[in-house]
Amino acid sequence: MNTPNKKHWKARLHEIIYEADTREGKLFDVILLVVIIASIILVMLESVKTIDSRFHKIIDICEWIVTILFTIEYVARIITVKKPLHYITSFYGIIDLLSTIPKYLSLIFAGTHALVALRALRLLRVFRILKLARFMGASNNLMSAIRASRAKISVFLFAVIIISIILGTIMYLVEGEDNGFTNIPKSVYWCIVTLTTVGYGDIAPQTPVGQFIASIVMIIGYGIIAVPTGIVTSELTKASEQKTPTNTQACRNCAAEGHKNNAEFCYNCGQTLNP
Amino acid sequence: MNTPNKKHWKARLHEIIYEADTREGKLFDVILLVVIIASIILVMLESVKTIDSRFHKIIDICEWIVTILFTIEYVARIITVKKPLHYITSFYGIIDLLSTIPKYLSLIFAGTHALVALRALRLLRVFRILKLARFMGASNNLMSAIRASRAKISVFLFAVIIISIILGTIMYLVEGEDNGFTNIPKSVYWCIVTLTTVGYGDIAPQTPVGQFIASIVMIIGYGIIAVPTGIVTSELTKASEQKTPTNTQACRNCAAEGHKNNAEFCYNCGQTLNP
Amino acid sequence: MNTPNKKHWKARLHEIIYEADTREGKLFDVILLVVIIASIILVMLESVKTIDSRFHKIIDICEWIVTILFTIEYVARIITVKKPLHYITSFYGIIDLLSTIPKYLSLIFAGTHALVALRALRLLRVFRILKLARFMGASNNLMSAIRASRAKISVFLFAVIIISIILGTIMYLVEGEDNGFTNIPKSVYWCIVTLTTVGYGDIAPQTPVGQFIASIVMIIGYGIIAVPTGIVTSELTKASEQKTPTNTQACRNCAAEGHKNNAEFCYNCGQTLNP
Amino acid sequence: MNTPNKKHWKARLHEIIYEADTREGKLFDVILLVVIIASIILVMLESVKTIDSRFHKIIDICEWIVTILFTIEYVARIITVKKPLHYITSFYGIIDLLSTIPKYLSLIFAGTHALVALRALRLLRVFRILKLARFMGASNNLMSAIRASRAKISVFLFAVIIISIILGTIMYLVEGEDNGFTNIPKSVYWCIVTLTTVGYGDIAPQTPVGQFIASIVMIIGYGIIAVPTGIVTSELTKASEQKTPTNTQACRNCAAEGHKNNAEFCYNCGQTLNP
Repeated sequence: MNTPNKKHWKARLHEIIYEADTREGKLFDVILLVVIIASIILVMLESVKTIDSRFHKIIDICEWIVTILFTIEYVARIITVKKPLHYITSFYGIIDLLSTIPKYLSLIFAGTHALVALRALRLLRVFRILKLARFMGASNNLMSAIRASRAKISVFLFAVIIISIILGTIMYLVEGEDNGFTNIPKSVYWCIVTLTTVGYGDIAPQTPVGQFIASIVMIIGYGIIAVPTGIVTSELTKASEQKTPTNTQACRNCAAEGHKNNAEFCYNCGQTLNP
Repeated sequence: MNTPNKKHWKARLHEIIYEADTREGKLFDVILLVVIIASIILVMLESVKTIDSRFHKIIDICEWIVTILFTIEYVARIITVKKPLHYITSFYGIIDLLSTIPKYLSLIFAGTHALVALRALRLLRVFRILKLARFMGASNNLMSAIRASRAKISVFLFAVIIISIILGTIMYLVEGEDNGFTNIPKSVYWCIVTLTTVGYGDIAPQTPVGQFIASIVMIIGYGIIAVPTGIVTSELTKASEQKTPTNTQACRNCAAEGHKNNAEFCYNCGQTLNP
Repeated sequence: MNTPNKKHWKARLHEIIYEADTREGKLFDVILLVVIIASIILVMLESVKTIDSRFHKIIDICEWIVTILFTIEYVARIITVKKPLHYITSFYGIIDLLSTIPKYLSLIFAGTHALVALRALRLLRVFRILKLARFMGASNNLMSAIRASRAKISVFLFAVIIISIILGTIMYLVEGEDNGFTNIPKSVYWCIVTLTTVGYGDIAPQTPVGQFIASIVMIIGYGIIAVPTGIVTSELTKASEQKTPTNTQACRNCAAEGHKNNAEFCYNCGQTLNP
Repeated sequence: MNTPNKKHWKARLHEIIYEADTREGKLFDVILLVVIIASIILVMLESVKTIDSRFHKIIDICEWIVTILFTIEYVARIITVKKPLHYITSFYGIIDLLSTIPKYLSLIFAGTHALVALRALRLLRVFRILKLARFMGASNNLMSAIRASRAKISVFLFAVIIISIILGTIMYLVEGEDNGFTNIPKSVYWCIVTLTTVGYGDIAPQTPVGQFIASIVMIIGYGIIAVPTGIVTSELTKASEQKTPTNTQACRNCAAEGHKNNAEFCYNCGQTLNP
């Protein structure tokens, strides 16, 4: 960092592209973020008929600009990295490639619908930059809480699915095909819509018995939302409480830390703490 | 386990079917789980008209395969268990029988709709296998928390029902039969739909006064969801806090307790803890 | 209690009606609960056209039976209580009267719709019996937690209403009368429907700008539901934690209780606790 | 305060308008609150066609009364404050001005729709009074908890938006324009409606694959609502736990801490705590 001018241009470029500690590195990340968001907005706008028919040319030009910028970045990443093959076959390497090529492919397979999906992958690139962002400090605690409650939440989701299948089958038998419950998968779909309190209303029970069962489904759904909430909250509380009520005193003899607040002697060597 | 070859075949079969500690036992459980899920998918697919009309024969054959496998399993369970009658009259024994017979019954009562309900009971068999699964370790804590908050949640649900009946009756009087609130049970149904924030929209208030009362119902529903959540969270936090990070050792000199797990000396008098 | 036979019949009747400690008292409460629930079901069934037209006579007779039972109870309560006027003018006294008279009034004002509302008041009688029920032990903790969080929840509800009015007015300006947002109160109603995640769909934004603002409203609503939940949970956790980690030891000198687990001397008189 | 009569009338007026400690100050705040709420109700009522056409004159007169009261208050605030320019350019100064002028502007630009928005700003004035209200004591704790969880909630909301865009794009490809998913922004809108469990039902998946993906979206939405709830609850619990029931007194003999509030003797050595 002290003598950047002496560094090889490859090393300097690597620093800019892959790191975010220098001023140039941060600037690169911000520009990349802007280009990615612009590219996502372009995909969205192009799907809107009225906008696309009016501004088709402008969107097309912007698409090409974004594609060329992505191409330059992709080439630069391959050149500067030490193991290019390792990068190309990595998760982000594949994402980078897939989010670059759709426009080139559109020259060959004109107007293919599926290319929209490919371009939507650009969104995944956002995570690369966010990895470096300051927000992640805040989310570390959150992530570990979610990870710790993974097993419990799996059990919960499994229970939700079983309840949905059982109650969906019952509703299929009660309401029948005339009231929109045409088959069991659709009944299960209705049950999930109700249990999660979404409630579209495209399928709704018509018979009194069906409405009674639906009421039970709703109250169950209203009640069991407490379970994932309880799990995550409990984990988060635990995580934030691990800052135990110990003091910051260090033993003068053995330098052990984390003494209880009312400790008089070091728990590690027996030396008196308050001489 | 050391001399399995000497064991009677009944004892070995019992071990495979009822336990999950040996390799064969685990394999049996996995196969059973697959067959059960396959049987449930079959019930679902058969209810879909378009699929059933096209693949009726294949589904019928698969149904017979599943039924025969279930029959073999049911017979094997009766043979290997020491008290067959006890098994047959047990909860899982009845479930096993009920999930096996529908196909046989369909030979007698052809095309009966209600048999679908019988076959849906197969789903309950999933619980048998899960009882043995590793997930349950994770859910023990969860189950005890839910059990501990049972009484409180009963009070809560009772309050929800009373609120629904009172507000449903009021809405019946305010909105009247012209706006879809044709009778009190239907109004109560609407109130539950609204209070649980499901909101189908098949019945919705039309008059300004009705919409005002509906707003109050929604805000109540939005607010009281906090109650079951709070109950479960509180219980889960309590449960997870009972694993304190201190050990149960008491100092031999001063009887101080609550020592840190890695403490070697008493924090109170400096006496060595592990002589 | 030791010599019940000598007691005056008024005192005995008072014990049965107002208390729930004796066997007769409990029986009375259970019968009353059944009659109240039966009377509520009658009100509900009568509102259903198809049932009322077929079973009108039976419902009418049942109504009279319930009314006569309520009358007997009301008179018995007045006779046995020491201060009849105090009972008649009390909250439950008025409820008892109001839930008794509708049938008598229907003789005068035949077929009046509003009498349904009066009869619905019977539901409030349920609380009288529940006051005595064992459930209340479980709900004490809950009630105090809700009471403690009353002020915070008021602030929260006030914030919800202000947000609804502001965003409702904005939506009225954005969407206009053609898309169902005919006036500000209706827009505010829509905003509450959306914010509380009920989402009937009777009024839904049609313009892109309106849908964008609606998305923001939804995400706000999805986020701030955390606030009442957090408040109640925090209070419940606090309430259940007040069982402090003190032991059950009582000082032999001054009988003070609630000593810390590692206390060696009474915090009140200085006497040694473990002689 | 002891000799209020001697005070300059400006100082007294300032005390009444800007403070809420004296009886007059409190009265002023209550009157202002009533006028603000009245002015908001007026804006609402005027937007309702049926009410406006019938009571147009009365509403117009009330509007003028409110406007004149606001004008008097605005002028009084400028006169009594020491730095008028500072007040005029402050946030509340601008709000005060903007909520006063709409009626005057309506004389020039008759019937302009946009003036409704200006008048809606009056609502923001409510916050001024509430700043002084007793409620704020209750909300301090709440506010600091929300502030502490700001970073985490930002990460969460960002994740919700990314999930919505990805799943919205997938649904656009799966369902297509025939089923209401006419373009990607609309699909993303649908995804937010579903993820937040609002569920209008104006756009709902029609194909089995679409309904399957929708079910996943719902379950995700049902699950991740736990995250903001967990964050806020965890912060609130932490905040409320900092008021420990022990005092900060240390024993003079053995320096033991964490004494109960009513302790008179050290629990560790028996020394008197309050000599």
